[in-house]
Amino acid sequence: MSVLRDLRLATYHESVEPYAYADGETLVVRLRVPSLVDSVTVTHYDKFKREATREDISAQLYAYEDEELVQFQAQLARVSKRFRYFFRIHTTEETYFYSRNGVSREEPSDADAFEVPYLGERDHFSPPEWTKGAVYYQIFPERFYRSGTVPNDHTLSDWDATPTADAFFGGDLPGILAKLDHLTALGVDVLYMTPVFHAPSNHKYDTVDYFHIDPHFGSTEDLKRLVDACHDRGIRVVLDAVFNHMGAQHPVFQDLLEKGADSPYASQIIARNWPLSPEALNYETFGYVANMPKWRTAHPAVEQMLCNVGTHWMRETGVDGFRLDVSDEVEHTFWKIFRRAIKAENPDALICGEIWQVATPWLRGDEFDAVMNYPLGRAILDYVATATIHAGEFLYRVEKIRSLYPEHVLKTLWCLLDSHDTARLLTLCDGDTARAKLASFIQFTMFGAPLLYYGDEVGMTGENDPLCRGGMVWEHVRQNLSLFEHYQTLIALRKQFRALRDGAYRPLLSRDNLNVCAYLRRCEQSAEQLVALVNSTANEQVITVTDALIGDVMYTRVTGDGPETLSKGKSLSIPPYTALLYAKTGRDPYGR
Amino acid sequence: MSVLRDLRLATYHESVEPYAYADGETLVVRLRVPSLVDSVTVTHYDKFKREATREDISAQLYAYEDEELVQFQAQLARVSKRFRYFFRIHTTEETYFYSRNGVSREEPSDADAFEVPYLGERDHFSPPEWTKGAVYYQIFPERFYRSGTVPNDHTLSDWDATPTADAFFGGDLPGILAKLDHLTALGVDVLYMTPVFHAPSNHKYDTVDYFHIDPHFGSTEDLKRLVDACHDRGIRVVLDAVFNHMGAQHPVFQDLLEKGADSPYASQIIARNWPLSPEALNYETFGYVANMPKWRTAHPAVEQMLCNVGTHWMRETGVDGFRLDVSDEVEHTFWKIFRRAIKAENPDALICGEIWQVATPWLRGDEFDAVMNYPLGRAILDYVATATIHAGEFLYRVEKIRSLYPEHVLKTLWCLLDSHDTARLLTLCDGDTARAKLASFIQFTMFGAPLLYYGDEVGMTGENDPLCRGGMVWEHVRQNLSLFEHYQTLIALRKQFRALRDGAYRPLLSRDNLNVCAYLRRCEQSAEQLVALVNSTANEQVITVTDALIGDVMYTRVTGDGPETLSKGKSLSIPPYTALLYAKTGRDPYGR
Repeated sequence: MSVLRDLRLATYHESVEPYAYADGETLVVRLRVPSLVDSVTVTHYDKFKREATREDISAQLYAYEDEELVQFQAQLARVSKRFRYFFRIHTTEETYFYSRNGVSREEPSDADAFEVPYLGERDHFSPPEWTKGAVYYQIFPERFYRSGTVPNDHTLSDWDATPTADAFFGGDLPGILAKLDHLTALGVDVLYMTPVFHAPSNHKYDTVDYFHIDPHFGSTEDLKRLVDACHDRGIRVVLDAVFNHMGAQHPVFQDLLEKGADSPYASQIIARNWPLSPEALNYETFGYVANMPKWRTAHPAVEQMLCNVGTHWMRETGVDGFRLDVSDEVEHTFWKIFRRAIKAENPDALICGEIWQVATPWLRGDEFDAVMNYPLGRAILDYVATATIHAGEFLYRVEKIRSLYPEHVLKTLWCLLDSHDTARLLTLCDGDTARAKLASFIQFTMFGAPLLYYGDEVGMTGENDPLCRGGMVWEHVRQNLSLFEHYQTLIALRKQFRALRDGAYRPLLSRDNLNVCAYLRRCEQSAEQLVALVNSTANEQVITVTDALIGDVMYTRVTGDGPETLSKGKSLSIPPYTALLYAKTGRDPYGR
Repeated sequence: MSVLRDLRLATYHESVEPYAYADGETLVVRLRVPSLVDSVTVTHYDKFKREATREDISAQLYAYEDEELVQFQAQLARVSKRFRYFFRIHTTEETYFYSRNGVSREEPSDADAFEVPYLGERDHFSPPEWTKGAVYYQIFPERFYRSGTVPNDHTLSDWDATPTADAFFGGDLPGILAKLDHLTALGVDVLYMTPVFHAPSNHKYDTVDYFHIDPHFGSTEDLKRLVDACHDRGIRVVLDAVFNHMGAQHPVFQDLLEKGADSPYASQIIARNWPLSPEALNYETFGYVANMPKWRTAHPAVEQMLCNVGTHWMRETGVDGFRLDVSDEVEHTFWKIFRRAIKAENPDALICGEIWQVATPWLRGDEFDAVMNYPLGRAILDYVATATIHAGEFLYRVEKIRSLYPEHVLKTLWCLLDSHDTARLLTLCDGDTARAKLASFIQFTMFGAPLLYYGDEVGMTGENDPLCRGGMVWEHVRQNLSLFEHYQTLIALRKQFRALRDGAYRPLLSRDNLNVCAYLRRCEQSAEQLVALVNSTANEQVITVTDALIGDVMYTRVTGDGPETLSKGKSLSIPPYTALLYAKTGRDPYGR
């Protein structure tokens, strides 16, 4: 009775993402149940041929939503593209059914089955292949390298000065071109640059002309040369598209300030009344920032212009995609139109949104290919950098994220620990290189696409904006070469093991008293299986190698300082703030 | 401890429909909790001005998902268009918080708040105003009236013959035009016709030419005359758009049969191999019906052609919208494009999908304005026509539907008890007029837009297709005039009381032993409040008028045979298979 009540309270499914989604030719369905459930099976059929097509599929335990709730997941291979289905929930005692009629002891009728009526050819999340698990390198162009070939009429700070909100350092696009060997040495797959279009500030999030490169950064030709050179090295290039708002110096806003409601652009922004008053802030803006007036993307001319920005730069320079600034405050309707424009130009282009929270509504396949997965980065930082959560909580936080997205969506999400909008990783780790290495180890062995913020790899520090935007440290003597080699190793590991790039992820164990956790990465296609063990304490920690950790698989150490192999029942010592990575090398012949 | 565990198991919210949705300038949020919860409050704020904008809103009990689970709902008036929020759950003993961090005793941090980052101007469900609560009249044109002015080379059956799958009766568009007085006498708002485009069958779901009216039905001019005449009478016209598949006689399929993979249309259908074989069924179809080959809407020419069908008929004849056949087996991607084409032509046009199951993914605002709400019709039929469920289960079935959709979506959903695809209402009621009247009473006093299938109003009967498609009975002596007056009364009531058209709905009580239920319809704008009492048994049933039923409101009878007013504590007798409708006329001065 109490089991039945628990099932009635907790069981949840809807025929929408992430509980039901198309993955290639299959339908993936998930069921949330209380953790007391032993197993789940799914019965599915084509409604037009119920008996002939009926099939029972075992669901697998997919994720832990929290201590009480788990998600089971099943992949339903199709006999047609039509799916009706219901669930069978098995406990130690009994079997229950779950359908639109709720939890029941009787098999549900066809009328009560869940349904995904048809898997439409274009109705699935289909990001470019290259974005799955790619390694991104983020550059803030004003601070990466000054070529000296682009005239700059700003008063420039010393390159090594502490950055201020208004300072200019003089970095430019030819400067980035000159330093591509650095990116190649790291081995990154993608270069993402914060905005490069004409704008007065050093960060260029206050665009005045979307169709010209900022003159202090260079020209369209310079960008094209940079893109070409990157492509020659196998590196793709992603630009920052700031479509939520313009800068106050933009001609549209200047005309509005001058002519008020009589301006031909009057309906291109969202004004509460006229004339516009930056002091009274009687128009919509980014945040409450008067000099970042918001575009009204519902205006046909704005909609068209912003789509043109995307296609223009793809055509002119061959850039491979866009990161969309403040994308969660722009209409969904606009992004759907933008996606069609971009993908018509190049289906292989990336569209990645800046969204700091859960982003499921943007990742249904008709808007974005990825978002910046801040919640995952925060979980890693809380566990390693600031030590505000223990190992168990860390794994649960990862599980929560996994439970909110279709599994294939997780592969493209940017996994970032810092950016131009946050304090730098090493600073968040109180300058402790060991912790920074440990956090980035998790970042690079976790699902998704890690984003490395320029300079982290040489030990740069900096509190929040503007301090996190220092001039890139180029003198070898000031670079932390151990960190650099660490990132090289992490990136090389991702190239070596497909399981790290786009494999499945599962939590293995956590020991809160030791602050140790372990997780698995696995790829069926490459038959790879990796175990990561993390000790986020200043002390050596010893765990016993259990069945839960290794099953009957033989593992050999890939990186870190620990025993060469994992043997069941043996003690495993993990040094302070260290991670060990083991790869499957076979099966234990004794099945221990 | 057990309360906390129940809360952890049952509480659910996501920042997506139906748990979060824009309604005009407000954000509506819902929380699912176990029924032990007393009340819920929502704290919301603009993330950029957390303290200054913070507001606490009391949520109201919205719906019962089932016996164990309820949904609370709150409408958050905006201070900006940005919403972060968390919930406070109050039980008799204690207060808990609910956020992305789950159920907790501590107030959640900003990082754990739920978020709807921005209410975009076009990102909300916005059906045409006229579709909310409208009364539809469905005509199967081949069977409504034969004008005799359209040449017909079929061998025609007697008008009163029992219909067969292949019979032709000779109904036509001028015939419908000639009989519009019938629609006006009923008072319906909208005429929906099953397909009228050129097709060989009597039902015309096997289109051969989307751009011509079937010659046996008339011409484009005839349709235009019909639409104009309807508009003159204040009646809108909705056509049936069969875009999932074509008929086998369509020139595209004929070319494919002839030329196989060499046909220029080869990629406009979905073939598994070539040549096409209707016997082997090596191409996708509707169901497994060989002569209804499925369009590949992902083909640009098909996509464009089908959009053109919509805009063509709107331009040529002024039709007011489309009902989309088998819409759940057509790509979502296509429907989003179709919506943009249709709404660009006329934002006030209706797009209604044929979907027999839960249809939330189509009703997010970017695809359909409505669907045919078969689950609601089934609930009414199960309660009244076939008596397979009792009053309490009926109300729970309605609650389940309410819990799956945003509240404003419910207003446009077609509420139908039968159609050309089912047995007729009176037949489902075993020929019992009293039950047919009772079922339609619920249909017309329930939320949504009732659909009356031609002939039901004069007592026509008929089992499933083809028997439900008889020639309309026009001789007065053969018409059930009591039923006709019943429908006139129901439609007049909807015109009289706005609360019936677009008011809120709440269940009031059910008595399973008496099979009696009661529900409320309420409209704040018109200050109307109506109570419907339903007795679905062959016996008179007596209930006591309670506080739960009437509160301190004075109600006067609007229809039915029962006491003129409702008095608390008094007995109320409801005759067999009868419904009583009462309207608020004031407040009880004694507040009893």
